[in-house]
Amino acid sequence: MNVTLSATLAAHEEIERRRRAGERVLHLAFGEAGLPVHPALRERLVAASGHNGYGPVAGAAALREAASGYWHRRGLPTDPDLVVCGPGSKSLLYGLLPAIGGDIVLPAPSWVSYAAQADLAGVRPLRVPAPPGEGGVPDPERVVSAVLHARSQGREVRSLLVTLPDNPTGTLASARTIRRLVEVARDLDLIVISDEIYRDLVHDPAAGFLSPADLAPERTVITSGLSKSLALGGWRIGVARIPSAGLRDRLLAVASEIWSSPTAPVQQAAAYAYTEPAELVERIDESRRLHGAVSRAVHERFVRAGVRAAAPQGGFYLYPDFTGLGFATSAALAASLLDEHGVGVLPGHAFGDDPGALRVRVATSLLYGETTERRLASLSAADPVELPWISASLDHLSEALTGLRRTCPAPGGREHAPLVPAPVTG
Amino acid sequence: MNVTLSATLAAHEEIERRRRAGERVLHLAFGEAGLPVHPALRERLVAASGHNGYGPVAGAAALREAASGYWHRRGLPTDPDLVVCGPGSKSLLYGLLPAIGGDIVLPAPSWVSYAAQADLAGVRPLRVPAPPGEGGVPDPERVVSAVLHARSQGREVRSLLVTLPDNPTGTLASARTIRRLVEVARDLDLIVISDEIYRDLVHDPAAGFLSPADLAPERTVITSGLSKSLALGGWRIGVARIPSAGLRDRLLAVASEIWSSPTAPVQQAAAYAYTEPAELVERIDESRRLHGAVSRAVHERFVRAGVRAAAPQGGFYLYPDFTGLGFATSAALAASLLDEHGVGVLPGHAFGDDPGALRVRVATSLLYGETTERRLASLSAADPVELPWISASLDHLSEALTGLRRTCPAPGGREHAPLVPAPVTG
Repeated sequence: MNVTLSATLAAHEEIERRRRAGERVLHLAFGEAGLPVHPALRERLVAASGHNGYGPVAGAAALREAASGYWHRRGLPTDPDLVVCGPGSKSLLYGLLPAIGGDIVLPAPSWVSYAAQADLAGVRPLRVPAPPGEGGVPDPERVVSAVLHARSQGREVRSLLVTLPDNPTGTLASARTIRRLVEVARDLDLIVISDEIYRDLVHDPAAGFLSPADLAPERTVITSGLSKSLALGGWRIGVARIPSAGLRDRLLAVASEIWSSPTAPVQQAAAYAYTEPAELVERIDESRRLHGAVSRAVHERFVRAGVRAAAPQGGFYLYPDFTGLGFATSAALAASLLDEHGVGVLPGHAFGDDPGALRVRVATSLLYGETTERRLASLSAADPVELPWISASLDHLSEALTGLRRTCPAPGGREHAPLVPAPVTG
Repeated sequence: MNVTLSATLAAHEEIERRRRAGERVLHLAFGEAGLPVHPALRERLVAASGHNGYGPVAGAAALREAASGYWHRRGLPTDPDLVVCGPGSKSLLYGLLPAIGGDIVLPAPSWVSYAAQADLAGVRPLRVPAPPGEGGVPDPERVVSAVLHARSQGREVRSLLVTLPDNPTGTLASARTIRRLVEVARDLDLIVISDEIYRDLVHDPAAGFLSPADLAPERTVITSGLSKSLALGGWRIGVARIPSAGLRDRLLAVASEIWSSPTAPVQQAAAYAYTEPAELVERIDESRRLHGAVSRAVHERFVRAGVRAAAPQGGFYLYPDFTGLGFATSAALAASLLDEHGVGVLPGHAFGDDPGALRVRVATSLLYGETTERRLASLSAADPVELPWISASLDHLSEALTGLRRTCPAPGGREHAPLVPAPVTG
């Protein structure tokens, strides 16, 4: 087993270390929502602070009922007995690997932890590139050939994973691709794991959202949580919607040996959140607008500097492509951005992308400020991009991109890479 | 992989189900501390309810510092950088398996989750019986032969585990056995994992406590947590003291892919607890006295009914031996106790004991009452065993043991098993 600290967390800790040492670093490397806890959730945590029993492994009844309602309101009737809660959707995603068994198809690129978890669980991922212009989904036609090839070699492949909307690309796969992928999953008898932790942060609420569970409820697991939409990453709460009692029982067996249950008082606060009271719906609406506005502004800075990137559609990520600069790898590019230009990002390689492709993941959510006051001001600002601390960060980014162009090793020995403003995909 | 719900949790859920259905069941099957949260810990949780960032994978600095102080006061100087916190010591124990690698020596019997975790992590346990009259430690001489034999067959064995004091037996291994085991671990180059979650609940505070870390700090991992001493099972917080930066880094790598970090507000409350303020020291003292008094009273009921059991020394467990009754397995014995006599216990088989040995694990901590009021009254009672709800439960147990003797299948076709009061070991 290959045990190395999650690239995201390692980068985060390195950037924090540099900041403590007095370095000026623009932190674009960590997918934390960067917003305060809503007071109503704090109140619920406080009210439940006497809950100290272990409680059911699947999660408290109130939380499973509330999560069931959450999905029901999204057109997915859900039996509360088929909801499993965990200390973050990360834990649930890990537990699903042994619970399902067999190898898994992952999109490339995809979130750093999927492949690392597979490695830890003794599962071999089949990495299948996303279709051109999309992210978070393996190309359906290439899934067929990859799975048939793996099976012809005696490998058991039992699942495929999608991220809707996606981290790292910040894009939402098209309904057409989802439909085709679900057909393929049926044909190949694959369970679909749909990581929908950013679902409520699709920037355009009118855009529509198609879950594989809408099409193939019998074979789709949805994982979600409150880390992104309500900024509760540090509270550790996730939920999974499981298609069958058999898989639920296997997941519970894993859960009972690794984590027992999520923190009991947090479960009660999460139960309140999943009833979707007006005050929290409003908070999520504000957060969605903020993430959209800032990630679009960051996108514009990349485009202005001649760096291609798909326009962001959900969450708080961009995945710019620096093709044309003379770095050998995305890791070298990310290192130069950090060491010479004070900008922390993650190399695409960490997400399973081709090491030589000059793509990096940019997280925009730590630009809202370091204090609760600034973060709340960002949330309520009519135009958050005009707030002085956010616009200063955007300027830092622009300077860094200009500086990178000036100082980077150029391919073929040229002094400057021929970056020109490029059309944007997506 | 063999995925079945933890025997403890499954039994707990089954007993709760029967109780909801109106059955009268004495719940002796679940190792929950059965006491309320101390108000000072609730206050700390409330004060930290705004903490929502992910924080370091190893745990907040304040918590690692406080845990370091906790061990320092027990004669074990500890670098806070070598403390790793997790959502319960269970998670940390799981993470240590891939972090250490190789197979593991477990005592037989031992806590249900050790072997289940090993199975999940693809690690093969070597189960070595405890020395006669002891629990929680594999017999040192048998460890040597078991490890040499396994190695001669090409297996890598890298660690051994002890539980001090022990679940399921409720006993504390002797200093002599610990010393010998540590010598063996050195000779065989094994890491010792010392699960000390019940350390502060050794009933006789003057009894002394020897940790393998006192003797071999270079190769001992200690795991602990607040689930038992401060009844915070549902809050999910554990700590580990790691002997080297290399092992710490490997554990953090696993942690970062499975659970990220414990719940942030809980970490702040735990940081307070590990400073050991007077109000919490007093609470732990009261808890220790209560666990001791009630487990001794339960022990006496077994002895009176002619069932052998080692006298309890720590925590809230007994491991009586019903040899002489005509059940084929401990599972059949436990089923009869539940179905015919309304007493829920766990069969010794679940702890890796010989299935045909008629031993069961009895947890005494759910006798303190079902309400906060009763639990607090138990904590402060001069003689908790005289409280009406506790004495009624003890009488229920005595009746069940008498009834079991009357109705049980007798070995060799005799109507009644020849149970006679027996001398007590330990």
